[in-house]
Amino acid sequence: MGQIPRFLSWRNMLVLSLAINFSLILKILKGDRERGDSWDRTAYVSIWPVVSTTASESSSLSSASCNYSKIEEDDDRIINLKFGDPTVYERYWQENGEVTTMVIPGWQSLSYFSDENNLCWFLEPELAKEIVRVHKVVGNAVTQDRFIVVGTGSTQLYQAALYALSPHDDSGPINVVSAAPYYSTYPLITDCLKSGLYRWGGDAKTYKEDGPYIELVTSPNNPDGFLRESVVNSTEGILIHDLAYYWPQYTPITSPADHDVMLFTASKSTGHAGIRIGWALVKDRETARKMIEYIELNTIGVSKDSQLRVAKVLKVVSDSCENVTGKSFFDHSYDAMYERWKLLKQAAKDTKRFSVPDFVSQRCNFFGRVFEPQPGTYKEKQK
Amino acid sequence: MGQIPRFLSWRNMLVLSLAINFSLILKILKGDRERGDSWDRTAYVSIWPVVSTTASESSSLSSASCNYSKIEEDDDRIINLKFGDPTVYERYWQENGEVTTMVIPGWQSLSYFSDENNLCWFLEPELAKEIVRVHKVVGNAVTQDRFIVVGTGSTQLYQAALYALSPHDDSGPINVVSAAPYYSTYPLITDCLKSGLYRWGGDAKTYKEDGPYIELVTSPNNPDGFLRESVVNSTEGILIHDLAYYWPQYTPITSPADHDVMLFTASKSTGHAGIRIGWALVKDRETARKMIEYIELNTIGVSKDSQLRVAKVLKVVSDSCENVTGKSFFDHSYDAMYERWKLLKQAAKDTKRFSVPDFVSQRCNFFGRVFEPQPGTYKEKQK
Repeated sequence: MGQIPRFLSWRNMLVLSLAINFSLILKILKGDRERGDSWDRTAYVSIWPVVSTTASESSSLSSASCNYSKIEEDDDRIINLKFGDPTVYERYWQENGEVTTMVIPGWQSLSYFSDENNLCWFLEPELAKEIVRVHKVVGNAVTQDRFIVVGTGSTQLYQAALYALSPHDDSGPINVVSAAPYYSTYPLITDCLKSGLYRWGGDAKTYKEDGPYIELVTSPNNPDGFLRESVVNSTEGILIHDLAYYWPQYTPITSPADHDVMLFTASKSTGHAGIRIGWALVKDRETARKMIEYIELNTIGVSKDSQLRVAKVLKVVSDSCENVTGKSFFDHSYDAMYERWKLLKQAAKDTKRFSVPDFVSQRCNFFGRVFEPQPGTYKEKQK
Repeated sequence: MGQIPRFLSWRNMLVLSLAINFSLILKILKGDRERGDSWDRTAYVSIWPVVSTTASESSSLSSASCNYSKIEEDDDRIINLKFGDPTVYERYWQENGEVTTMVIPGWQSLSYFSDENNLCWFLEPELAKEIVRVHKVVGNAVTQDRFIVVGTGSTQLYQAALYALSPHDDSGPINVVSAAPYYSTYPLITDCLKSGLYRWGGDAKTYKEDGPYIELVTSPNNPDGFLRESVVNSTEGILIHDLAYYWPQYTPITSPADHDVMLFTASKSTGHAGIRIGWALVKDRETARKMIEYIELNTIGVSKDSQLRVAKVLKVVSDSCENVTGKSFFDHSYDAMYERWKLLKQAAKDTKRFSVPDFVSQRCNFFGRVFEPQPGTYKEKQK
């Protein structure tokens, strides 16, 4: 995988590899060196970044610190905890494939336009409907009186939010900060074009400059999985909330999130990373308008087919939650995460070579029971 | 359509509206004021920018010059030549819907990865195959020893090329120039983030600065439809070729294009604008690698579903060309363009209120006959 570029390091902290790799840890720690079994192969196929294993590095996660040298399939002693790919929910979607199957005729998606009457003219109405519905079913975000902006993943929406929230006068770039440890690709995305509108300002915990700034709040946080609030003590902060992991398989849903700009993505909620669809719930019309403007300039809208697919997937998710007889998607994904964290905790206990964080249990309004977070990302406990 | 944002002005210069609007011109010039027929309605639905009607404005096309105020359906005297939407080929795709229909199961597109062994790891192999095939069938671009980079439309690829070709040292932003009249969104895209890597440098015809620069060559050009070559007389130019319209329905294919960076898009070739897929053929590996890096940072790859759809559409196009018994996609689309230009020319002749450019006929290697360009964009002839 030498060809997977350096920036991908730490990205997306996906769940499947985490657990697969944990299984491998267990295997290897127990001295199981047998070759050629399916777990080994899966580990090498799963090459998405998953965890930070050293606490000291996590606040300055740099792409340069990642080694993307090719992992040979015949070397089963190497476990790459940095990579993953969200196929953790694959079995669920295979078992529920029928209702989620889409048929797209050849004449679909000729037009650029999805909804001429919507401020976000490239948003498919069906997707908008299912976004509102799934948030209502799960209770994880307020959608009333919000503008929905669809993006090619939440990564594009993060950039759209920066474009929308930065001053466009001659005041120079606004600082963008986030409390360490933060998702290491944020600084790379922010600074890659040397924008005169915004620049990465580092750790929000130590940020002391006067004047306006943008604070990015990722909750549950990537990579450590903790719930977060803004930390800069100033009235001049503009907040962006990345809530990619605020779903009940990862953390108790304690209340509907209610912030100015909230980002979500199909990659983390349903596991459909390859469709590249994210959405923002935005309180202010002008902010939404400028986010839309950015997406027009950047990609002239968002794939209609992908939107329709995510609409169908979200519909199946909501339907599964409202169907009282079977296991819902979140029951399934919660169980998958639970099993994997159980393996990880056991491995940590057995070896003492690494440790897991202490999470606080809370009551989840969606499941109606108390449990502790089981994040889709993992960062070793600080010592 | 007051909500269609200003930047969209002039974008994409799509074909359908052009012709529909031409029909409207004819109708109105002939005094046909009858209300409520289907053409009128179509004209108001078609709101994509299509043409520049005044030669003097075209070299400095500004978004501010476009009036996006809502066009009332009951005002059939207003013809908006600036907007369009690529449904010109809709009938073809409806008639050939069966073979182009896609069935996507719910478990598809969970992974971020399309091809781990490809430099462009998010490029679907099937799309890569069909891109090479269609260029070979049409003979409009060299694909041998080229890297294919897929993008969320060619707009994203333009930005990826800027990122890849700009110096990343402290030399300051490189100038990006293009011969006027140029597609007016280019400067908006280039300058929207006030990048320190690149900036819009204006008309290539009058560009005299020393040092490296990027010249954007759009051929056939948008908006005037003429074939183009680079115009800056310097050895320090880095070229990007936007060949979105270099297909036989728009212009004679005289030879396979053979440039360092060539951009194409499904929007113009097959009319599937809403799928948002473009591709670049790139000679230099390092340039391709950096373009891929940009797309990773910008959107973490490109929708897999959309790629697979375009792969299927391109397959049908190539199959239709190799099937000697029926009308190929390009036969169909050539005829559609021919009919519409015939209407436009007749309208120009009848009214003398506007004129059409004089294009030179050339032999098209694909069709094996001589014809004159019939561009997907229109700009009034200079006087």
